[in-house]
This record gives sequence, C-alpha cells and structure tokens, in this order.
Amino acid sequence: MRTRPLKVALLGCGVVGSEVARIMTTHADDLAARIGAPVELAGVAVRRPSKVREGIDPELVTTDATALVKRGDIDVVVEVIGGIEPARSLITTAFEHGASVVSANKALLAQDGAALHAAAEANNRDLYYEAAVAGAIPLIRPLRESLAGDKINRVMGIVNGTTNFILDKMDSTGAGYQEALDEATALGYAEADPTADVEAFDAAAKAAILAGIAFHTRVRLDDVYREGMTEVTAADFASAKEMGCTIKLLAICERAADGGSVTARVHPAMIPLSHPLASVRGAYNAVFVESDAAGQLMFYGPGAGGAPTASAVLGDLVAVCRNKLSGATGPGDSAYTQLPVSPMGEVVTRYHISLDVADKPGVLAQVATVFAEHGVSIDTVRQQGKDGEASLVVVTHRASDASLNGTVEALRSLDTVRGVASIMRVEGE
Amino acid sequence: MRTRPLKVALLGCGVVGSEVARIMTTHADDLAARIGAPVELAGVAVRRPSKVREGIDPELVTTDATALVKRGDIDVVVEVIGGIEPARSLITTAFEHGASVVSANKALLAQDGAALHAAAEANNRDLYYEAAVAGAIPLIRPLRESLAGDKINRVMGIVNGTTNFILDKMDSTGAGYQEALDEATALGYAEADPTADVEAFDAAAKAAILAGIAFHTRVRLDDVYREGMTEVTAADFASAKEMGCTIKLLAICERAADGGSVTARVHPAMIPLSHPLASVRGAYNAVFVESDAAGQLMFYGPGAGGAPTASAVLGDLVAVCRNKLSGATGPGDSAYTQLPVSPMGEVVTRYHISLDVADKPGVLAQVATVFAEHGVSIDTVRQQGKDGEASLVVVTHRASDASLNGTVEALRSLDTVRGVASIMRVEGE
Repeated sequence: MRTRPLKVALLGCGVVGSEVARIMTTHADDLAARIGAPVELAGVAVRRPSKVREGIDPELVTTDATALVKRGDIDVVVEVIGGIEPARSLITTAFEHGASVVSANKALLAQDGAALHAAAEANNRDLYYEAAVAGAIPLIRPLRESLAGDKINRVMGIVNGTTNFILDKMDSTGAGYQEALDEATALGYAEADPTADVEAFDAAAKAAILAGIAFHTRVRLDDVYREGMTEVTAADFASAKEMGCTIKLLAICERAADGGSVTARVHPAMIPLSHPLASVRGAYNAVFVESDAAGQLMFYGPGAGGAPTASAVLGDLVAVCRNKLSGATGPGDSAYTQLPVSPMGEVVTRYHISLDVADKPGVLAQVATVFAEHGVSIDTVRQQGKDGEASLVVVTHRASDASLNGTVEALRSLDTVRGVASIMRVEGE
Repeated sequence: MRTRPLKVALLGCGVVGSEVARIMTTHADDLAARIGAPVELAGVAVRRPSKVREGIDPELVTTDATALVKRGDIDVVVEVIGGIEPARSLITTAFEHGASVVSANKALLAQDGAALHAAAEANNRDLYYEAAVAGAIPLIRPLRESLAGDKINRVMGIVNGTTNFILDKMDSTGAGYQEALDEATALGYAEADPTADVEAFDAAAKAAILAGIAFHTRVRLDDVYREGMTEVTAADFASAKEMGCTIKLLAICERAADGGSVTARVHPAMIPLSHPLASVRGAYNAVFVESDAAGQLMFYGPGAGGAPTASAVLGDLVAVCRNKLSGATGPGDSAYTQLPVSPMGEVVTRYHISLDVADKPGVLAQVATVFAEHGVSIDTVRQQGKDGEASLVVVTHRASDASLNGTVEALRSLDTVRGVASIMRVEGE
C-alpha cells in the first residue's frame, strides 16, 4: 500500500460534511485498505470558522474555499455546500488545479451538469455525485455502470423524503396537507421554508439527473415538468383508496414507445397498493427501474440525512481515489444519444378526474361525449348523487396530457359541469 | 472513439450465453458508445456445435474452449458455463493469456474465489461477477463500490427465485411443499432435479460471496451454515400467519455485535409481514443491507433468467472493457480484515418452537424451567389443548443457536413432551 496520503478538501461542514469528516477519521484504516493509500483531510472550508466542530482540527478550518481548492496538492474536493454559487466556481477551479470532485449538489448538477462534466473531462479528472440523488441509495452507479449493457426504458421513483413523509402521514391518518406538513416541520423532516420540497423543485432536479444518466441524453432542470403536492387533499386520498391506490409524489423519466424521445416529470400520482413503491413509508426513498433485459428493479433506502448522505459521498471518494492511484477516470458524462426531451403534452398516462355535476339525466352522456371527442377513452365511471348535486369520477385509459387538457377545458365549459374537483395521474399499472 | 474492436470470447451459449450474444449484436452501437470502442464476438465455445444458434455466425462456434481462451487476442472472456470444471481451468488460462473475465458462476466463485482473484491480480486483469448473485439486481457493485466508504453489518436476502416461488405459493394457496414444487417444476421455475435450489446449495454459494464482499474477509462455501426448505409445512405457514409473519428462505451474513467475527447462514425463517422482504413475491429476489452510515437499503429484482442475467453480465463487460482501454483494473479481491467465520452455534437470533405435549397441569412449568436452565428467555407462549393432547408454541427472545439446541435436546427428554413439531428461526425484527 502507498503510504503517502491522498489529500481531501472538504467544502462545507454542515449536517453532511461533519459526518464525512467523522467517518474519514473513525474509518481511516478501512478507507486506506479499500483505496490502497491513506486519505487525509487537508482542509475544511466553512462560513462560520468560530463554530466548534468536534473531531476536526481547528488548524484545518478556513473561510477561504477558493484558496483551498487552488492549493494544488489537493487530490479530491468534496463539495457539500449546495446551491449554485459559489459551489460551481469552486468545482471548476478544483478541476483546473488538478483535483477530482465528489459532490452532493443536485441543484447544480441538474442545472450545469454538462459544463461541469466538460470541465472534469478537459482536466482528465472525475466528477462523482451518488449523494445528489436519493441519499444513501446506490442509484447513480447502478444506472451508469451496472446497467451499462442494458437499455433503460423507465425510471420512476420517490426521491424526496419530506414529501413522502407528508403524503404517508395524510394516507395513514386522514390528515390534511397543512396538518401533515406541520408535523413534518416539528419532527425536522421539513425545513422552515418547505418550498423546494413541496413544490417539487428538489425532486425535479433529481429527475433531470436520473433522466440524463438513464437515457444517455442531455436533460436539464428546465426540461422537467414539475407539479408540487400542496394541493393534494384528504378527499384525493379517499378517492385513491376506493381505487385500491395511494398517492405518491413521483419522479418519472420515460423513453417514448418509439424510442425517439424522452420525457421527465414530477407530480403527485395515484399508484396501486400492490406496486412496490406504494409501501415506501415515512421519509424513505425508492426508485423503480425498468430496462429491456433486466426487467424491473427497485432500489430502496434513506433518501436524506447526514450519515446516509455521507455514506454515498464516501463511496464516491473511495472510487475517485482509486481512479487517481491507477491514473484512470471513471465513466464520465454520457449524452451520446442526444434524444429530444418532449414537452409534457406528449406524455401518455392514465387519469383520475373528479367532477361536480348537476344531478340530472343526460349529464353522463354529455361528459362521455366530450371525452370521446378528444380521443380520451374512459375506463370506469362512478356516479354519486346527493341533494341535487352529484359527482362523477372518471378513470381513463392511457391518453396524452394534451388530449386530457383539451378534454378538461371542454368539460369546464359544459353548463352541467359545476367544477373540476381534481385531476390526478394514475401510474404504475 | 477507438475503431479497433475489443474481442470477446463467450464460453457457453445456453439460456444466458445466447442472450449475451444477442444483446451484443442488437445493442452494438450503444455498447460501443458506452465503452469507447466497439466490441466484437470473437468466438463461442459450446458443447454441441451442431445446434442452430440464431444470430451467431457458425464460423465463430468451437468446441475447443481451451484453444479459444489461449488465442492471445481475446480481451474479455465471458464464462457462463457454470460448475467447477472446466470453468475454473478456462478462467485461469484466460488470465494467463491476457484476458479479463466476466463470470456468472456462483458455485465456482464461492469455492475458489480467492484463487481466481489471485490469478486475476497476478496477471493484472479484472474478474467481475455481478451475475453470480441475484441475477440482474445490481448488488456486487453497490456492496463493493457504492458502500466502500461505509461499514456493512448485515446482509439478509432472498437470493433463490425457485424456493421463493415455492414458499410464496405455499403462503398464498395453503399448498404443501410437494404440491408447490410440482407447480414450480411445471412452470419451469424448478429444475427436474431441484436439489441445488431446495436444499439451499445455490443460496449458500451466494451467501459466501456476499459475506466475503460485505465484510472484506474470506468466506468459503464450507463456512456457510445451510438448511434447505423441504421440511417447511403448511402448518408452519399457519403458525407464521398467527404471528403476523410469513416464511422465506433467507441468506443471512452478519458481523458479530463485538465486530470480531462474522457468520453466514441459509435457512427458512419467519419474518414479519411488515418487513420489506416479506412482500417479495414469486421468483423475484431481494437483498436487505444494513450499514453504519447508510442505514437500511434494499435491492429488488429478477434473480434469474436469460435476459436479466445477461444484463448483469453485459454491465460487467462494459466496465471491464473500459478498464482495459484505460489500462486500469477495477476493485479486486478484498479480504484484508481476515475476520474469523464463527460456527452456527454462535449465531444469535429468535426462535419459534412448536411442541406436542401431554395435556396436564405442570407441563408449562416444566418446559419453562428447561428454557431457563439453558439461558433461553421466553417472549411468548401459546397453549392449545384438544383430546388429552396439547400443543405449546414458544417464541423466544434472542439466544445463541447452541443454547437453543441444548434446550431442544433437554425438552425431547421430558416425559411430558411427546415431540418437537417444528423449530424455526424468526428474523427481521
């Protein structure tokens, strides 16, 4: 084994960074044996240097992250700051000064993955980011390497623990969205400003990364259709239960049936209770992958948290260090198929639509005619009447999002339709 | 991209081999893009050369596998023959003649993994075998690479599809073992001689491989405690249901609580219906991994079949070809911890014991005394009496296998105990 250590610079020392530093110390011998050389924490860039950080030599702490990545003797930079800047500039500078990079930064990867990969490649360095998607769950590596000889057609997953906790709570207790969110906040599962989670910005970034890797094509955050879960109601869960379903916030990346394009989207959806994703509870994540040869695979585990995310970061650190020792680089960016990303209108799926209608003869016939005129085939209809009001619950066969939108617009203009109470996609069948 | 192709020799062209050859042809462009060079099928060694093999140039077919691996121009040998010989000699010869090897051979890896890894290392070549455990499920790579910065404490899985199909059938229909086996045979899930599956030789080989990788220690097939599932009865399933459990054939690899040793075992066990492994249906496989930092992870998918196994083989083929082009090798054998493998007697778990006893006062006191004398603490007891006969169902707290065996031996010698109807371990709590 080489005795001269590989030097690691840590950018950020919050929940994840402090765990990375801790494990680098407590598991130093194991890491050395697995890498083939010891690894040494050579510097830690933080915003608040005065904060006491147990187990970290104060001499290593600096507020000048740029100087740290420019030192020239750093082998690997671990970026766990998050956000676009200064993370982006620091990573680029790290590559230019000879370091490889391990990042957990989903927002940055989703927005600027191509440029960062290009910078890594130009400097013959590695950019690894297993921790950016689904925390501790090995997912990027299986998609990029284990399934490299296969053709992936679909990636569908629960990739945000906060929203899964909220939806699971609504499902199991009948609570409304706000009540469940309050509990998530109290328990530390949701941040004070939960927007990134509940409006699905976080999940959309992960969907962009997963789609890019799965389909070897360029998918940016802007390409991902995004719909949050703040409007999911207790009534939606009641409807889902009647159908033998539950509701999950799903990130779905699909190759079109003809293979000529891909789509990526994040939205709440009903899935059957028999689907493996339906039983993913609390803040856990799980990702379901369908490929030509392997068939259906699922990866399950904690999607966030300091130690789980650190596990993914350190797995990457070992790989990047091994590559450094052997003079090789791992599988980098792969966007050779250059498939177009289709807009949401072209996505084909099933829908569950709940309508408030007048309780009089002929309404169902009118409604059914509108669906037929827009080419949306109805699977089942359930009518419930009470006090002159009635509700119609329609579940469709597969249809394009554009056709469904046209249908709903036409339904709204019918005199007999008082309102469209909810529209939800039905997945996993 | 390099235009000169990498040359692949395929040893075996059965269910898996023919799928490997097919995908190498149909996905040639994708494989080339992902590797950075085209791959060419340079030879196929078979036993019956006269058999027509669709899509394979008859010119490539040979019965002389040894000559094929000795050619010297072969970059990668894919071994999907199975069994110990001639596979072992062919793989060793392949390394000596400059080829890396991708194998799906669990029996060989479990028996001679150390020697094969040594041969690979001596020749600076790769030995990859994702397909040897749990078919298409990415498992070896996640354990070896994604979790390389973590400390794995437990691997528990359903790694044999045939027995899971049989047990699932018994669970869902109330069928007995023979009836369920007959159905598995009729549907092609069980072989004409099902011994390797039902007596858990296959699962034991996989447990040896998984334990070795998870604990960075040497675990051979002989180190694995093995108990088949031919004696699981419909009555056992009824008992399991009463406890809110089902029965699965589990491969369990554990690090001892003090960290100083490991164990590996395969046997039928009750697990709670709430455990993720309980809902693994039909011939699917799933493996549950517990580590210090990542926590609980699960990997799920098809554990066998031509195309799924080929997916795993081809993922390895891409990795090995990439390594070849960059002049590096992937993570090889890792047995640096050299932990001893403890015998079954030291395994600590819970037990479900069903006794036929005389229906008279004082029996429970006698039985409880025997448990106490052997240091086995009782969790729950259920008594059922009918017609002068009675049954006692005892569920214990955690105790060593040796203590439990001592207890059972002493129970058998009691006059009031007519027989020990069943003993089953309880896992996953």
